[in-house]
Amino acid sequence: MPLLVMKFGGTSVATVDRIARASKRVAREVANGYDVIVVVSAMAGKTNELVGWVEETSPLYDAREYDAVVASGEIVTAGLMALRLQEMDIPARSWQGWQVPVKTTSAHSTARIEEIGTDAINQKFKEGFKVAVVAGFQGISPEGRVTTLGRGGSDTTAVAFAAAFGAERCDIYTDVDGVYTTDPRIEDKARKLDKIAFEEMLELASLGAKVLQTRSVELAMRYKVKLRVLSSFEEYDPNAGTLVCDEEEIVEQNAVSGVAYSRDEAKMTLISVADRPGIASAIFTPLSEAGVNVDMIVQNISEEGRTDMTFSCPTNQVKRAEEALSKAKDAGAINYREVVCDTDVAKVSVVGIGMRSHAGIAAKMFSVLAREGINIKVITTSEIKISVLIDRKYMELAVQSLHDAFELHKA
Amino acid sequence: MPLLVMKFGGTSVATVDRIARASKRVAREVANGYDVIVVVSAMAGKTNELVGWVEETSPLYDAREYDAVVASGEIVTAGLMALRLQEMDIPARSWQGWQVPVKTTSAHSTARIEEIGTDAINQKFKEGFKVAVVAGFQGISPEGRVTTLGRGGSDTTAVAFAAAFGAERCDIYTDVDGVYTTDPRIEDKARKLDKIAFEEMLELASLGAKVLQTRSVELAMRYKVKLRVLSSFEEYDPNAGTLVCDEEEIVEQNAVSGVAYSRDEAKMTLISVADRPGIASAIFTPLSEAGVNVDMIVQNISEEGRTDMTFSCPTNQVKRAEEALSKAKDAGAINYREVVCDTDVAKVSVVGIGMRSHAGIAAKMFSVLAREGINIKVITTSEIKISVLIDRKYMELAVQSLHDAFELHKA
Repeated sequence: MPLLVMKFGGTSVATVDRIARASKRVAREVANGYDVIVVVSAMAGKTNELVGWVEETSPLYDAREYDAVVASGEIVTAGLMALRLQEMDIPARSWQGWQVPVKTTSAHSTARIEEIGTDAINQKFKEGFKVAVVAGFQGISPEGRVTTLGRGGSDTTAVAFAAAFGAERCDIYTDVDGVYTTDPRIEDKARKLDKIAFEEMLELASLGAKVLQTRSVELAMRYKVKLRVLSSFEEYDPNAGTLVCDEEEIVEQNAVSGVAYSRDEAKMTLISVADRPGIASAIFTPLSEAGVNVDMIVQNISEEGRTDMTFSCPTNQVKRAEEALSKAKDAGAINYREVVCDTDVAKVSVVGIGMRSHAGIAAKMFSVLAREGINIKVITTSEIKISVLIDRKYMELAVQSLHDAFELHKA
Repeated sequence: MPLLVMKFGGTSVATVDRIARASKRVAREVANGYDVIVVVSAMAGKTNELVGWVEETSPLYDAREYDAVVASGEIVTAGLMALRLQEMDIPARSWQGWQVPVKTTSAHSTARIEEIGTDAINQKFKEGFKVAVVAGFQGISPEGRVTTLGRGGSDTTAVAFAAAFGAERCDIYTDVDGVYTTDPRIEDKARKLDKIAFEEMLELASLGAKVLQTRSVELAMRYKVKLRVLSSFEEYDPNAGTLVCDEEEIVEQNAVSGVAYSRDEAKMTLISVADRPGIASAIFTPLSEAGVNVDMIVQNISEEGRTDMTFSCPTNQVKRAEEALSKAKDAGAINYREVVCDTDVAKVSVVGIGMRSHAGIAAKMFSVLAREGINIKVITTSEIKISVLIDRKYMELAVQSLHDAFELHKA
């Protein structure tokens, strides 16, 4: 029997009525001849309520207890959906993380799935069950404690199940109808993509297009799981949404697939650093140890043995970064005159696997921004992405100009 | 290290603040030198919310899914209380039913505890943990599904843990400050009892004094677990509440300890039943099979080979009883002219282990009721209880008169 994984996010299961609507979609796939593994999130708002209680009870909470409390939300949805499916005469049962089992690392609140047991659920499919409703976001540690996979973790649960059970496809039902060329709230000519390559989705996800948890895309890419992102609020359409797939399955490929942005960036510059071999390591090792996610890095041309080192990181990590640098300076590990911090910046990126075969994308991007009078502060590039740091006030203008210049509104 | 079990009901853990207050009580017992097993209910209202969603989703729900959903409420409270205790520097962790494990029968929603694993929790106590916070009301079936023990089941969880771990005492914190000689809402001279025997508590619990789940009292009696019922809303007092204990520990004993009542009773009479050996069995076997809880039974004197058979049962089981009787009649198993049903009745009982050594309690009870002009419809007696069925409109009068006549307001 072919198998499908269907994942429903919090807004898609926010009420008993919405759970009934989602169950209808599951029933349709069962009627189409599939066995189905459904992965559910907590009802919208529930996880926040639980997190609120935890933080009120213990500001510096024990992550093991946090996980035990917060994972309860998905248990409720899984049971309710199993009940709803039974009510529609579809043999179904719910599964909690420890029952499957979903074995994870012990890194509470950010655990990684290590293994998914397939025997118990496959046995039920053999006995005639058509649907396994799995509580997403959770697993069990080697110590037998409940773990969670981090915010958005149910996406990762879904992809991991699709990989473990060899599913034909993994459908992620959410409150948007697919992946867009850019944020439609900024550019109203943004166009929904029918297909997008894993690599591109990964860049978009990590650049702040919060459709899928980054980890779930990585996992899908590694195990070649066909992912589809689609809305649970639209009429049934077998070709709905956006397919995230191997680039070989994408025939027509624009040079650029999308324009992404991130508001949450800060630029930090260490002025007058002694330029010697190993200096980059001496700067970025303590930052990494302090948990600072350094993104872009630029080193100026060295003059008289001294240089300026610039990097970007999320705005809320600036304080932590400053402390780590100051500590390293006090310990004599690094030497600089001062740290200059600019939190009024934003990152704008163009992404596309087509860049590999199209020359001149960077040049075009820079000339578009220059024409609009937007100064570029930092540049980084990868094989399929070019990112620039600019003043935040120009962010929307940059996104719109680039979307237009690369003709992303055209299919 | 001496061990205490402390159980907190839903109103005692209704909010984060109340969980903090309950945690202070736990901390005090830890300071007194105890290791503590805390058993918690769901936050007040949460279980009803979950049950509501289940019934809305599937009116004839699968009890296995019901259990999975409803048991999640206790998981939340257990985690939050463990966090709160940690915040007070008390080494604590939460335990879900399957983690302990609390092994139960497969009778979902009314499961019985068969075995409690003590190794894992004892190991933690050895490692220096002071408190194990256990999610009440739940267990795990032989099939590995989550089970629940029925409404009020956390009381039973608490007593079962006290028995399994050999606790010095099991304190049940609730929203009343103990067990009273009768319902203070009916008789304002009702007096709190310092001690009450297991047998008496059992009669009171099953007669509708809803302080403790009946099953928990049975279990406490069998395993000689000292139970204390006390309020979580009053100042700390080591002698607070009511101790439910072996009768040998009760020195001064009145003939009558309390007056109980139950509004929820119906009287059914089968008119003109053929009086032959085996007729009682022929009537009550089908009723039992239909799930009717028959309480009192009276058979009239037989005349010309025919008799009237009267019994009482809960009001909401009358329809089920009528159907079972009619089916048995149609099948030729029994024969009667008609069934007369009276749903305007109530049961009033006097309870006391002192009855065993005091003669004339029944006679006194009947004369008190006669003096008030209250007609007795059915009588049953046990070694420590006399119950009468009367018109419901006289119920409060009967309770007050009996409380007064047996001088229950005096210690």
